[in-house]
Amino acid sequence: MSSSPVIGQPLRRVDGGEKVAGLTRFAADVMLPGMLHARLVTSPHPHARIVSIDTSAARAVPGVVGVFAGRDLPLARPHPSSRNKAPLALDEVFFSGHPVVAVVAQTEAIAADAAALVTVEWQELPAVTDPLEAMKPDAPRVGAEEPGDSEEELAMHGAEIGAADETEPKAPNVSTTSHLQRGDVAAGLRQADVVVERVYTTSMLHQGYLEPRAAVATVDALGHVTVWTSTQALFFTRAEVAEALGLPEHRVRVVAMPVGGGFGGKFVLLEPLAAALAVAVRRPVSLVMTRNEEFLATTPAPQSRFEVALGAKRDGALTALRARVVFDAGAWAGAPLSIACVLLASYYRFPNLDVHGVEVRTHKPGSGAYRAPGAPQATFAIESAMSEMAERLGLDPLDFRLRNAVVEGDPTPTGRPWPRIGLRECLEAVRRARGGALRLLSRGDGDVVRGVGVAVGGWMGGVEPASAVCRVNGDGSVSVIVGSVDLSGTNTGLTQIAAEAFGAGLDQVQVVNADTESAPYAGATGGSKITYTVGAAVKAAAEDARRQMLAIAASHLEASVHDLEIADGQVRVRGVLDRTVAIAKLARMATEFGGKYEPIFGRGASATTARAPGFAAHVCEVEVDRASGAVRIVRHVVAQDVGRAINPAAIEGQIRGAVAQGVGWGLLEQMSYDEAGRLLSGTLMDYALPRTTQTPDDVEVIIVEVPSERGPFGVRGVGEPPVVAGGAAIANAIADAIGARLTALPITSAAIVWAAAEPASVAERPAA
Amino acid sequence: MSSSPVIGQPLRRVDGGEKVAGLTRFAADVMLPGMLHARLVTSPHPHARIVSIDTSAARAVPGVVGVFAGRDLPLARPHPSSRNKAPLALDEVFFSGHPVVAVVAQTEAIAADAAALVTVEWQELPAVTDPLEAMKPDAPRVGAEEPGDSEEELAMHGAEIGAADETEPKAPNVSTTSHLQRGDVAAGLRQADVVVERVYTTSMLHQGYLEPRAAVATVDALGHVTVWTSTQALFFTRAEVAEALGLPEHRVRVVAMPVGGGFGGKFVLLEPLAAALAVAVRRPVSLVMTRNEEFLATTPAPQSRFEVALGAKRDGALTALRARVVFDAGAWAGAPLSIACVLLASYYRFPNLDVHGVEVRTHKPGSGAYRAPGAPQATFAIESAMSEMAERLGLDPLDFRLRNAVVEGDPTPTGRPWPRIGLRECLEAVRRARGGALRLLSRGDGDVVRGVGVAVGGWMGGVEPASAVCRVNGDGSVSVIVGSVDLSGTNTGLTQIAAEAFGAGLDQVQVVNADTESAPYAGATGGSKITYTVGAAVKAAAEDARRQMLAIAASHLEASVHDLEIADGQVRVRGVLDRTVAIAKLARMATEFGGKYEPIFGRGASATTARAPGFAAHVCEVEVDRASGAVRIVRHVVAQDVGRAINPAAIEGQIRGAVAQGVGWGLLEQMSYDEAGRLLSGTLMDYALPRTTQTPDDVEVIIVEVPSERGPFGVRGVGEPPVVAGGAAIANAIADAIGARLTALPITSAAIVWAAAEPASVAERPAA
Repeated sequence: MSSSPVIGQPLRRVDGGEKVAGLTRFAADVMLPGMLHARLVTSPHPHARIVSIDTSAARAVPGVVGVFAGRDLPLARPHPSSRNKAPLALDEVFFSGHPVVAVVAQTEAIAADAAALVTVEWQELPAVTDPLEAMKPDAPRVGAEEPGDSEEELAMHGAEIGAADETEPKAPNVSTTSHLQRGDVAAGLRQADVVVERVYTTSMLHQGYLEPRAAVATVDALGHVTVWTSTQALFFTRAEVAEALGLPEHRVRVVAMPVGGGFGGKFVLLEPLAAALAVAVRRPVSLVMTRNEEFLATTPAPQSRFEVALGAKRDGALTALRARVVFDAGAWAGAPLSIACVLLASYYRFPNLDVHGVEVRTHKPGSGAYRAPGAPQATFAIESAMSEMAERLGLDPLDFRLRNAVVEGDPTPTGRPWPRIGLRECLEAVRRARGGALRLLSRGDGDVVRGVGVAVGGWMGGVEPASAVCRVNGDGSVSVIVGSVDLSGTNTGLTQIAAEAFGAGLDQVQVVNADTESAPYAGATGGSKITYTVGAAVKAAAEDARRQMLAIAASHLEASVHDLEIADGQVRVRGVLDRTVAIAKLARMATEFGGKYEPIFGRGASATTARAPGFAAHVCEVEVDRASGAVRIVRHVVAQDVGRAINPAAIEGQIRGAVAQGVGWGLLEQMSYDEAGRLLSGTLMDYALPRTTQTPDDVEVIIVEVPSERGPFGVRGVGEPPVVAGGAAIANAIADAIGARLTALPITSAAIVWAAAEPASVAERPAA
Repeated sequence: MSSSPVIGQPLRRVDGGEKVAGLTRFAADVMLPGMLHARLVTSPHPHARIVSIDTSAARAVPGVVGVFAGRDLPLARPHPSSRNKAPLALDEVFFSGHPVVAVVAQTEAIAADAAALVTVEWQELPAVTDPLEAMKPDAPRVGAEEPGDSEEELAMHGAEIGAADETEPKAPNVSTTSHLQRGDVAAGLRQADVVVERVYTTSMLHQGYLEPRAAVATVDALGHVTVWTSTQALFFTRAEVAEALGLPEHRVRVVAMPVGGGFGGKFVLLEPLAAALAVAVRRPVSLVMTRNEEFLATTPAPQSRFEVALGAKRDGALTALRARVVFDAGAWAGAPLSIACVLLASYYRFPNLDVHGVEVRTHKPGSGAYRAPGAPQATFAIESAMSEMAERLGLDPLDFRLRNAVVEGDPTPTGRPWPRIGLRECLEAVRRARGGALRLLSRGDGDVVRGVGVAVGGWMGGVEPASAVCRVNGDGSVSVIVGSVDLSGTNTGLTQIAAEAFGAGLDQVQVVNADTESAPYAGATGGSKITYTVGAAVKAAAEDARRQMLAIAASHLEASVHDLEIADGQVRVRGVLDRTVAIAKLARMATEFGGKYEPIFGRGASATTARAPGFAAHVCEVEVDRASGAVRIVRHVVAQDVGRAINPAAIEGQIRGAVAQGVGWGLLEQMSYDEAGRLLSGTLMDYALPRTTQTPDDVEVIIVEVPSERGPFGVRGVGEPPVVAGGAAIANAIADAIGARLTALPITSAAIVWAAAEPASVAERPAA
C-alpha cells in the first residue's frame, strides 16, 4: 500500500463540528412561509374495515386547513398493496398504527388537537400477528391482493438475493419463498458425528435513530413539487413521489437534508403523503413523526425464526446445514428473507446444504431495512449453532471456525466463487488480540460468572452505478458534487479520495450533496456501498479534473504533462523551482472571458457488479449475575476487514456504534405486541435502546485490510459488517458463562434467571 | 443545412406559459422565515463629505432591527474605488443617489419610514458632471485614487477590446484611454473628395428592465451565505460577494432567480450589500430597489461624444476615419470605451484610421452595460456620418455601404482578419425587402414628411469557457444542467440543441439552471454568447450522453452501435422492427441496484476563442410632423445574420424588442441631470421609455444565416446585434425626412421643430 498523506489519515468528520455545536439544520427545521403542519390519526386495530370517518369536529377547530382520509388525497393510482401509493389506509387497515387520516393545520398543536376529534367507525376483522399462525389454512388473509413492490427498496441494501422457489405451493399469507441447495443434505446429516438442532428466534426491532422521520413538501404555482426530507435515497424518493402523484420525475425535486440517524430505515415513507397534502392544500406542509408514531407506524426490522440442523464430523469438518427460515414481513412484503438465507449458509464450507425460507405477512407494520437487514438474524442462528457444535466437539470455537471458514474461490451458497475476502484474517486478528486462545482463565464463582463468545458476520456489499463531478472553482477550491447522502461519514472519506486523486489539500475540497435537480446520479445510501461505488466515481472524477488541470498547466508552463507535479495548491515543473502556477490561477484561466481553456469539470462514474464482501469477527466477554440476570460486557474485540481504511477514525466510529447496536440485538430491544395485535412498546420508556451504561467501555477495534479488487484504493463497505455478529457474540458469551444456551434474541434478564436455574437443560426463552 | 425536426423550429419559450400566467417567482418574491427588509438612504449631493450621521431617530422606530452606514458593514476590505467592496459610501459620496445608509426592519414600510428619519450632516464639495469639464486642469477630482475593477465585468459582454494608450499624458479624471491606428489618417483625409465632420452625442440611458433589482441574502449558523438574486452572472456574483465579505467562494451560494429583464444591467450590485446586512443582523434580508432608486443609484449606459471626420472619394471609396471619443464613466471607471472605438471603425474598410478615446469620470452614477454596450453610441456616429456622406456624394446610402462593407479576410481595427461574417448579406437582404432601392416614391408635403434611413450595426460576439451536463433520468427524461441564466429565451434554444444532439423529443428535455453549488461553470449571460458557448457545451454533453446510452443499448440489444437509431423515446436496431428498447429502460438499467452500466451522465465543455460577429441592417421609414416634431415609424425592416436560427421565434422576439429599444435610443430616452448634478428624470413619468404606441407596428424581420465556424450548428450571438443600429437608422430617416441632420440622441420633438425651421443649416440639438 502506497503511503499517502490523506488516505488512511484518521480524520474528524467534516460535518462533526456543526453537529456537535447543534448547528445542523435537519428536515424538521425547514421552515417555509405559510407552512402548515400535519398530524396523523392511526388505527387502534390491527385489522379492520373503515365503515365511516367523521371529520366534522376536526374541521371545525380554528386553524385547521384540511382533513384528509386515504381516498381524499390527490394520488395517481392509490392501491393498498403499496404504502407509498396509499400512504393513508384506503378502506381497510392492516396493522395497529396504520395511518388513516391526516389533519393539516396552522400549528402542530392544532393539528394534534383536531386529530383527536376525528372519529372512525370500525368494523373489526380477524387479525393474525404470529407468522406461524398466519400460514395456517384458515388464517385471516393479510393485505391486498396485488403483491407489494418493496423488494426494490430492499435490493438497494445490496445483499445477494437467492433464487425464489416458485415450485413450492405457498401457504396462506406467504409472499415470497427462497431456496438454496447444494449436495444431499440428508446424507450430509447422516455422515455427521454430531448434529446440533435448534430453533432460533429474533424479535422485531426499531432502527432507533435519534431523529424521527420528517418531510416538508411544497408545490409551486407551476405544479412542481419539492420535498425536503430525511432520506437515505433521494433519487428513489423522487421516483416514488412522482409515481404516487402521477407526475413526471422532472416535476419533483427532492432535497435530502442531513440525516439524524437512518440505519436503513429512511428510504421513503412520509414523502408521498407530505407531497400529496401539499398538493391538496397548495401550501407547504411539514410532517414530523412523534416518537410514538415512529414505533407504531414505520418500518421496523422483522422478527425471524430459524429452524437449523448443523452436522459435523468429530474432527471439526462440517457435513451439512439444513434450515427452515421464516420472516415476518408485517403487512407488506419486503422482508430480507433471501439475504438471510444466503448469509446463513455463507460463512462456512457446507458440502451439503438445504435452506428453505418463507416470508409471511401478518397484521403488523411492514418491515424495513435495519443495518445489514437479515444478517444479524441469520448470524445469530448459525453462530449460535457453530459455538454449540464446537462445545460438543470439544474444540476451540475460534479454531473450529477457522477450519471451516470460506476463502477466495470457495463457492458461495448461490454457487459463484467467493472473491478475495478477509474472513480468516479477521478470525486470526481476534485470536491474536486474545493472546491465541479464547478460553477464560477465571470464570468467576457464586452468582457472578464470566463467559466469552466469538461470532463472525459478513455482508456481501452493495453495488450500484454511480456518477460524480469534480469541479475546480475560481479560488482554486475543489467541489465534489455527488447525489449520495452522508449517513456515516462518507463525505469525509470522499473528501480524502478526491484530495488524493486530484492532488489537493483536504481543506481545499468540499463535498456538495446536491439535490435531484442537478446531482450526478447515485444510488441510495445503504448496503455499505457509498465509498465503494460513489467513491470510485469521485476518484474517477477527481482524476479527470486533475488531467484537465495538468493539461492547462502544461500549456501555460510550456512543459510536458509528465514533468508536472501538484503540491501546496500549485502545479510545478518537477525540479524547476520557479516554474509554478497556482491552481487558483489555472481555474481562473479556465473560466475567464475569452479564455482558451475549458472549465475544469471532471466527470466520473462507476458500475462494477463485483461485490466486495466485508467480514468482521467479534469476541465478547461478559459477566453474568445468575441471580438477577444482569449482563455486563467486560470486553469486546472486533476485527473488521475494510479492504483499505480511508478514514480509520470513521471506521472505528462505525464499529463502536455497531457494538452498541449489537447490545440492543443481544440483550435489550424488541417491539412487543399483545394478543390483540397492539404494540406494547411504543415509547422509549418501553422500548429498550441500549444506554451508555449498558454498552461496553472496553471495545478494541482491529482494522484488517485485505484489499478488494474493484474498490477505490481497495476499499470494502464498512457500515454494515460490524453489526452483524454482535448479538451472536453476546449470546455465545452468555451461553459460555451460564452453561445454558438461550435461543431467542434479545436475551432478557428473565430468560437468564430461568435458564441459569436449570443449567442442565437447554433453555428456550419462557413465554413473554 | 441538414433538415432537423427541432433545430430551426419556431417554438414558444419553455418558460413562456408561466410568465404570461404570472406564476414565475422572482427574487423579490423570495420569502424566508424571519426575513427582514432593507431600505436605503441616498445622497442628495453629487459630491460631499459625510461629516456625521445621526441614526438615533431611525433606530427608535419600532420594528427597526439595524441601521448601517458604510463603515458599519461586516466587509473584508471596504474601499471606495469599488462599489462592490463598499456598497454604501464610506466617507464621501460620488454622485447624487449614492447609497449612504441602509435601514433593516421588519417590513419595507417601517424601513422606509425609519430611513426618512436618518439625518446626515454634509460638507458639500465641488462637483463636475460634464465629462469635458471634468478633463480641465482645475476640475474637481472624482472618486478614490485606486482605479476601479469593473473592466472585468465589462469584458464579460464580450466585445473585442482595443489596446489602451499608455503613452498619452492623461487629463484629470481620465480613467482609461484607447487608441486605434492604421495608415496615415491626415493623408487619407487629404485624399478625400468629401469630408464629413461632425460631433455626435448620445445620452445616459437606463436599461429600463421591468423588474427592479432585488436580492435576498441569508447566512446560516455555519456562516454560509446564500443569495437569491436577479442576476445575469451567478458565478461572478459569487466571487464578488465572497471577496466583499472575505469568505472563500465555497461559503457563498448564489441562486440566480428568473430575471425580469436585465439587458446587461444585472450583473452584481445589491448582492454584497444584502449579504453584508444579513451577516450583520444574522437574519435573512431582502433588498428590492424602488423605481426611483433604479434611476438614482444603479449602472446606466454612459453618455458619449464622438468627434468624427470621415473622408471619401467621389466614387464612394472611403479614404479615412478620424475620431475623438469621450465616454462619461460616472463615478467609477468601466465605460465601454474600447468597444465603442473598435466598433466605430469596424463596419467599413478604412485605409487610414485614427481613433482616440478617453473615459472620463464625473459625479454621476457609475456606468454599466446596456445591451451591446458602446455599440449604439458608436454606430449612431459612424452611420450618421456614412448616410450624410452618401447624400453628399449623391449615392444610394445602401449601395454606398455595400461598396465599403467589410467581408471575411478584411482587417479588423485591431489588425486581425475578419472571420466569416454576414454584414453584406444583411444589407442585401434589406435591399431586397425594399424592392432594390431605398428612396421613397412619395415624401409627403406640408408639415408631415416622410424619410427613410438605413444603418448597420454589429457585435463582435462573446466568448467564454462553458461546461454543461446532460443527465438521463429514470423515466427517460433528459436533464440539461447549466450554470447560465436564461435572459432571452436561451433555455428554449438549449432544449432544442440537446434534443437534436441526443435524439430526444423536445418535451423530453428540461433545462435546469443550477446554482453555484452544483452547476457546471458558465460565464455571465451577456455578450450574446450563451447559445454560442453554453450551447456548444450542451451539444457536447448531449452527444456524450447519447454515446453512453447507445453503448448500453448496443450491449443490451446485442447489436453494433453503428446499427442503432433513436426515435420516439426508443433505441432500435435499424431495419429490425422488434429489436427496440425504451430510453427509460436504458436509464433504469444504468441506475439499478447491481446494474452493470454507468449512469448516463454526459459532460460537455467549450472554450473557443474564435468570435462569431453578428450583424444586422435596419431600414426605417418615418413620418415626421415638422410642426409638432412628432415622429411615427411607418415601417421598420431588420435583417440579421444569426449564423443558424435555432429558434426563429425567439430571434424574432429579440429583434422586435431591439427595435423598441432603438426607438428609446433614437427618440425618447435620456437621464437628465441639472446643473447641480441632481437627476431630473427619476421616475417613469419623467424618463421616457418607449410605449407600445411609439414603437412600430410594421416590423419586418429577415433572418439571415451565414453559419459561424465554431458555433453549435453554426449559430452566432443573437441578443445584442439587433439593438445596435436602431437609433442610427431612425436618425437617418429623420434627416432624410426633414432635410436636416440632428447629431444628438435622442432626437426630441423640440430638436426636430428647431431643426425643421432652419432646414438649410445643419442642426445641433438646442440646449436643454
